[in-house]
Amino acid sequence: MQTLVVKRSCERRLLQGHRWVFSNEVESPLKMFAPGEWVQVVSTSGRRWGTGYVNPHSLIACRLVGSQNTEPTLEFFEQRLREALAFRERLYPGERTYRAVYGESDGLPGLVLDRYDSAWVMQITTAGMAPMTSKICEALVRLFNPAAVVARNDVSARALEGLPLEKQLLHGTVPEPLLVDLHGLKVRVDIWEGQKTGLFLDQRDNREALRRHVVGAEVLDLFCYQGLWSLVAARAGAARVLGVDASREAVRRAEADAQANGLKDRCAFQVQDVLQFLKRTPRESYDVIIMDPPALAKTKSALPNALKGYTDLNRRAMLVLRRGGLLVTCSCSYHLGEEAFYKMLVRAGQAAGRSLRLLEARGQALDHPALLAMPETRYLKCAFLEVR
Amino acid sequence: MQTLVVKRSCERRLLQGHRWVFSNEVESPLKMFAPGEWVQVVSTSGRRWGTGYVNPHSLIACRLVGSQNTEPTLEFFEQRLREALAFRERLYPGERTYRAVYGESDGLPGLVLDRYDSAWVMQITTAGMAPMTSKICEALVRLFNPAAVVARNDVSARALEGLPLEKQLLHGTVPEPLLVDLHGLKVRVDIWEGQKTGLFLDQRDNREALRRHVVGAEVLDLFCYQGLWSLVAARAGAARVLGVDASREAVRRAEADAQANGLKDRCAFQVQDVLQFLKRTPRESYDVIIMDPPALAKTKSALPNALKGYTDLNRRAMLVLRRGGLLVTCSCSYHLGEEAFYKMLVRAGQAAGRSLRLLEARGQALDHPALLAMPETRYLKCAFLEVR
Repeated sequence: MQTLVVKRSCERRLLQGHRWVFSNEVESPLKMFAPGEWVQVVSTSGRRWGTGYVNPHSLIACRLVGSQNTEPTLEFFEQRLREALAFRERLYPGERTYRAVYGESDGLPGLVLDRYDSAWVMQITTAGMAPMTSKICEALVRLFNPAAVVARNDVSARALEGLPLEKQLLHGTVPEPLLVDLHGLKVRVDIWEGQKTGLFLDQRDNREALRRHVVGAEVLDLFCYQGLWSLVAARAGAARVLGVDASREAVRRAEADAQANGLKDRCAFQVQDVLQFLKRTPRESYDVIIMDPPALAKTKSALPNALKGYTDLNRRAMLVLRRGGLLVTCSCSYHLGEEAFYKMLVRAGQAAGRSLRLLEARGQALDHPALLAMPETRYLKCAFLEVR
Repeated sequence: MQTLVVKRSCERRLLQGHRWVFSNEVESPLKMFAPGEWVQVVSTSGRRWGTGYVNPHSLIACRLVGSQNTEPTLEFFEQRLREALAFRERLYPGERTYRAVYGESDGLPGLVLDRYDSAWVMQITTAGMAPMTSKICEALVRLFNPAAVVARNDVSARALEGLPLEKQLLHGTVPEPLLVDLHGLKVRVDIWEGQKTGLFLDQRDNREALRRHVVGAEVLDLFCYQGLWSLVAARAGAARVLGVDASREAVRRAEADAQANGLKDRCAFQVQDVLQFLKRTPRESYDVIIMDPPALAKTKSALPNALKGYTDLNRRAMLVLRRGGLLVTCSCSYHLGEEAFYKMLVRAGQAAGRSLRLLEARGQALDHPALLAMPETRYLKCAFLEVR
């Protein structure tokens, strides 16, 4: 391995546990390195930071992976996968559907791996991890004997690393239909066409936390996607649930899952633009509203407009909620920080003329742990608010 | 009622839902008002803010209570108590021990009310609420027929409002012993001599969240008080639990509760200064450590020293934890904000040479809801950290 020399200016951050070196912190001429090349990282002060991989064309010039002795061998990937899986099995004993690897937080930068029962879906977002695809697949096969391993490499972040957008079957055959147990429900997953790798697993614990609040309630689930929040609410005892999403395909799946779980009598879904829906809905119509929109701020520069969007959506949702009702409102935009998210909600409450009690300030599920020193690994906000 | 005129400078905050007017925001001569006098609040702009009460000697010159028509009658207190109790019954169905009223968040500034089964303990901290004591007690008796109502008015905040520190039996007889059901345990509460009103109810949901992490673990409970974290851990399947607290009386109670719940074989307690204990304990000795210290920063000026204290305690706890173990670390200091708390933990991790994964960023229990626009109502931080 070549050596990448980094400036002292990044030492404090790395010492605290951050795992990235930015391009302006690199001392070596970056053109010495091929995209994705694995290197030993050393500061100008002589301190050794272990192994990482480089992308000379990215703002994130280097991502640290392991100690000095780390080589990207089959055994290395087996070891990291074993650790990651042991952690999930401790958190969710007996479960077979979860995020199995969450990038940097599991010591595998550039890799996301979701398990849907016997099918495993990986997403590789960096040039350094891309050449490891077959090793990771082999490690998975050796350790867990999966029915299928799929690469959902159709995520736009790959373009920044010069990687093609593609979907591939790497191993086995995907069960058809693919049914998973989640929240005590049978849920059908489409790992080829579904959002992200199929389902939004990061809301798992938040959906569980919803249960106590919906007994006997009329519930509205906005941006419902394939209806997991809705089905959890119905199963937990909601009187009626309406899910709204702009995607016809998502609503079709939500309806099918409601049917399959015997919840069709209490769950309805509508294909509808959420903002238009809120504009048409009379005030004070629901007891509980879940608002889990897609990331409105995908980049930092999109933040001012996104804030207007979030404020407007939340203000309108507050008005449609009965006094004393519960708003479960989320943002998965990393660029909208937690403090700014809560300030936005205060403004939305003021605009709606409602006072807000915060019951819980929640985040991403336990299988998406964050590195405390690396705010980039913490993105999901989920507030349980009583609106009066 | 007299009218209190306030400056426009506080309007924005009040519009957002804050409930205090500070002394420099008052236009009327404050000497017109008696401590605790109830008033109508109006801005110089003519806007009416409803009813509140004044203390001319406090930095918080006025606390808003209700609409213009609010009078502090028996019926008013009955109504607020009914709303507060309905909220708790929805959150904790069937439970009989919880925080029943949490000040401003329940529209009753200056009043905290904790229910311990058939005994109710109130704490009144303002001159405006103090004269209402007998009405509140009467409302409680009419609504809930309590065995006892006690005033634990021995809290130092009362001195700021010119109120005496005292404890009083207001109604009935306190059952002796007073046993409550909490976390599936029988817990003995001393509402006369216990900390706060008897127990630390604000950690209730956090203790429940601990369960999944302690199966088979060796657990250390620091600042254990009367051992509730310890007993929950033992009941959830911990192999061994050691609780440490400097108070002999607290440890005596913890031991008695362990005995009474059949957990004595797995729970031990020590009377010991926590810092001294950590200094003497070999590294990497425990799988799970709970650190729930008293507020080290009781005032803003105490914060710099408190930060040193928190950092040192957390660093030492991280070292005493086995690699991959769980640190559940808390701060109940309002003056240590959430962001500063997490930054402190990053520094402690750096000093200990450990990397930290955040599993959950938790706060106070659901029966201590915060007003979103009033940061003063949100004080408890509780981080679940994996330490590697």
